[in-house]
Amino acid sequence: MSVDFATLVTDLGRRARAASLVLANAPTAAKNDALLRLADAILGSAETILAANRQDLSQAAANGLAPAQVDRLTLDLPRLRKLAASVREVAALPDPVGKILEEYTRPNGLRFQKVRVPIGVIGIIYEARPNVTIDCAILCLKAGNAAILRGGKEIFHTNQVLADLVRAAIAGAGLPIDAVQFIPTTDRAALLELMKLNAYVHCIIPRGGEGLIRFVAENSTIPVIKHYTGVCFVYVDQAADAGMAERILLDAKVSRPGVCNAAEQLLIHAAVAERMLPPLARALTAQGVQLRCDDASAAILARAKVAHQAAVPKDFTTEFLELTLAVRVIDSLESAIGVINRDGSGHSDAIVTGDAAAARRFQAGVDSAAVFWNASTRFHDGFEFGYGAEIGISTDRLHARGPMGLPELCIHKFLIVGDGQVRA
Amino acid sequence: MSVDFATLVTDLGRRARAASLVLANAPTAAKNDALLRLADAILGSAETILAANRQDLSQAAANGLAPAQVDRLTLDLPRLRKLAASVREVAALPDPVGKILEEYTRPNGLRFQKVRVPIGVIGIIYEARPNVTIDCAILCLKAGNAAILRGGKEIFHTNQVLADLVRAAIAGAGLPIDAVQFIPTTDRAALLELMKLNAYVHCIIPRGGEGLIRFVAENSTIPVIKHYTGVCFVYVDQAADAGMAERILLDAKVSRPGVCNAAEQLLIHAAVAERMLPPLARALTAQGVQLRCDDASAAILARAKVAHQAAVPKDFTTEFLELTLAVRVIDSLESAIGVINRDGSGHSDAIVTGDAAAARRFQAGVDSAAVFWNASTRFHDGFEFGYGAEIGISTDRLHARGPMGLPELCIHKFLIVGDGQVRA
Repeated sequence: MSVDFATLVTDLGRRARAASLVLANAPTAAKNDALLRLADAILGSAETILAANRQDLSQAAANGLAPAQVDRLTLDLPRLRKLAASVREVAALPDPVGKILEEYTRPNGLRFQKVRVPIGVIGIIYEARPNVTIDCAILCLKAGNAAILRGGKEIFHTNQVLADLVRAAIAGAGLPIDAVQFIPTTDRAALLELMKLNAYVHCIIPRGGEGLIRFVAENSTIPVIKHYTGVCFVYVDQAADAGMAERILLDAKVSRPGVCNAAEQLLIHAAVAERMLPPLARALTAQGVQLRCDDASAAILARAKVAHQAAVPKDFTTEFLELTLAVRVIDSLESAIGVINRDGSGHSDAIVTGDAAAARRFQAGVDSAAVFWNASTRFHDGFEFGYGAEIGISTDRLHARGPMGLPELCIHKFLIVGDGQVRA
Repeated sequence: MSVDFATLVTDLGRRARAASLVLANAPTAAKNDALLRLADAILGSAETILAANRQDLSQAAANGLAPAQVDRLTLDLPRLRKLAASVREVAALPDPVGKILEEYTRPNGLRFQKVRVPIGVIGIIYEARPNVTIDCAILCLKAGNAAILRGGKEIFHTNQVLADLVRAAIAGAGLPIDAVQFIPTTDRAALLELMKLNAYVHCIIPRGGEGLIRFVAENSTIPVIKHYTGVCFVYVDQAADAGMAERILLDAKVSRPGVCNAAEQLLIHAAVAERMLPPLARALTAQGVQLRCDDASAAILARAKVAHQAAVPKDFTTEFLELTLAVRVIDSLESAIGVINRDGSGHSDAIVTGDAAAARRFQAGVDSAAVFWNASTRFHDGFEFGYGAEIGISTDRLHARGPMGLPELCIHKFLIVGDGQVRA
C-alpha cells in the first residue's frame, strides 16, 4: 500500500515540477485571468461547494466534533462571497516575479542582475478551515509557484471541490492545470511521502495547530517554513500612560484571544505596579479575563481586592488562546527583555512607555519578529503590515520572519552577462 | 553516554543563545576589534597552531590518508598568513546588521521599520580543511551570530587550537566568549544532539561532501542551508562564437575541476556540432579532459578522429569533480533548457551565443541559481560576485540562493511605533 502512495505522490511531484517551470515565466495577465475565473467559479458553483460542505459537516457532527470546530468547517453564501472577494484582491496585487532586486557591473565587465523568481514547488499541509485551500492556492499561483495541497480529513470533500475549481480556472487561463494539485487521500503515508520528495518539492508550509507543525518539522527532509505559536507579551513600563496601557492590553488580550498575535502575558514594572495594576486588572476581569499571577502581582491584587489566581510555572510559557493572562511584576526594563527572550516565542511583543530611550532599548533587545512600541500586538499580520495578503506569519529565522506575503513566496536567481570573460 | 552528550550539547546551546543576544546589539567596532585580534593571534601563535597541525597530520598519515587529502589538512606559514589576511578582509567589510531594509507609515499612523538583524545561533558542521573553522567563525561573528562549530576528526587538534584563538580574541574585545564554541568531541552522538537543539539553534550549515550534507539534511530538525553538488552545464548555441566557446569551456572545465562551479557537461546545438565540436574536443583532450559522449557527439568525434568514450546514462547527472566532461548534441535551445532543468543541479549554467533573444530565453528558462551568458560558470562565487566573502554557495531555494555572504547570514525583524493604536 505504501508503494502505491509513493507512486502517487511522486507522480504529483513530477507534474508539479513541470508545471512550475512553465508558471515561472507565465505572464501576469494569465495568472490574474486564472484568479478572476476562480472568483467567478466560487460564486457560480456555490451550490456544488455547499453540497460537498454539507457532506463534510454531517460527517463531522456524526464524529462528535464540538460546535466551535464545526463552525470553522462551515461554508455558507456570505463566506463564499468573502472568499471570492479575497481571490479578486490577490489578482489586484502586484506580481512579485521578475523584479530586479540588485543590478551592478563588476570591474571585469560582468553585468549582474539579481532577479526575483518563484521558489518552485510548494507543499501546503493544513487542517480544518476550507478557505485555506483557496488562500494557499491563489498566493502560490500569483507568486508563480506550483502547489501541492494536502488538507485535513474533516473537510476533505469541500477541499476537493474547491481544488477542482482552482484547477479548472488555471486551465481556462491557458496555464498548466498541475500548477495546483490536491492529494486525493488523507492517509498519513501519503503525507510522509510528500515530505521526502526533495527531488521535486522545494518548500513545505504547514498551516494548523502546534501538533501538525511539529510533526511536519520533525519528519520533512524538505525545508519547512513554520508558523508556530505566539506567546506574546505586553510590557507596561514605569513611564507608561495608564490609559494607553489599558487600551492596548485589552485589545491585545480580548479582541480575538484565539489567534497567534493575541497577548498571553502582562509584565508590569515594579515602580508602577501598585498604582497601575489594579485598574488594569479590573478592566481585564470585567471582560472575562482570568488572571494567573506571580507572587508580587497576586499580593497587589489581593490588597486591591481584584479577582485573580496564583500562576503555576507553565502559565509563563503557555499560549492560552483563550481569555487567560499570565501576570508578572518586573523590576527593570532589562529584566523584561530577558524574560521575554527566555519565555516568549519570538512572535509579537509590545512595550507601553512614554520613554523613547526605553522603547528603543526594548525594540533592540527583544528578539522577536515584531516588536511594538505603544501599539497592540494584534497588528502583527499581513494586511495590517500592508502586504495585502499572507500565507501565514513565520516564526522561523530563515527566509521569512513575520508576515509571509507574495514576495516571501519567492526567491531570486542571478543572471550574469559577459562578453567572453573567463576566470583563470 | 548519550545522556552526557545531550547535557554537553544542550549546555553549549544555552551559552550560545545567551551570547547571541548580546552579540546582536554589539557595536561594529567591538566585532572588528575581535577580528583584528584574531588576525594577530593567528600569526603570533603560529608555532602552537602548526604543532597541533603536525599532530593531526601524523595521525592522518598513520591512518593511510591519500597525499591529496593530507595536503588539504596541512597548514604552513604561508597558509596562516593568507588566513590572517582573510580575517582582516572580513573586518574591513561593512557590518550587515542594523540596516533599515524598508520603512513606511500605514494609514492608521503606525510606523514600520524592517531592520536587518542576525539569525541568532548557527551550527556549522564541516569536514577536513582547517581554514573552515576560521572562515565560519569570523563570518558568523561579523554578522552578529553565535556559532557552534563541529569539525571533522581528521583535523581535530588544529581546529581546537584555532577555536581557542577565536574565543580569546572575542573575549579580548569585550564580547561574550561563547559567541563561538567548538564541540570538543567528534562523536556522532553529539552531532545528532546538536541537530535537534531547536530551542537554542536557529540554523545549521553543513560544509563538506555530499554524504555529510545529506546526513545533516536528513537528520536535522533545525532548518538547514545546503551547499550541494554542482552539475554545471555549458551550452554552445548555434549562434556561438567558436573561439569564445572554446575559451569559456576550457576555463569552466579545466581551470579547477574539483570545485562545484566547474562544468561537468557540454551541450552543443546540432546545427553547429559537426563544425564546432571537433576543435572544441581537441582543445579539451589536449588539456587531459576525458569526453563521455552521447551517440550523436560520438559519431562526429569518430569521423574527426578525436579521442572520446561512449557515455553511460549516469554520466549525464554526475558531478565528476575531475577532468571528465559529458557531451551531448542538442536539437534546439528549448531542448537544452529542458535537459539542464532535468539533469542539472540548479547551480551554475552558461550559454555561449551571439543571439541576444536566445540568451534571454535561456536565462529565463534555466532554473539555476546563476545563469551565465558568454561567461564561465567558474565566476559563481562570493568574491567574484562582489560579496567580499562567503560561507558557501547555497543550492537551496529558501533564504539564500547562490553565494551566501554576510547579509545572507542575517534575517530581519519589524519595529513598529505607534501612539496607542489598537486594532479592534
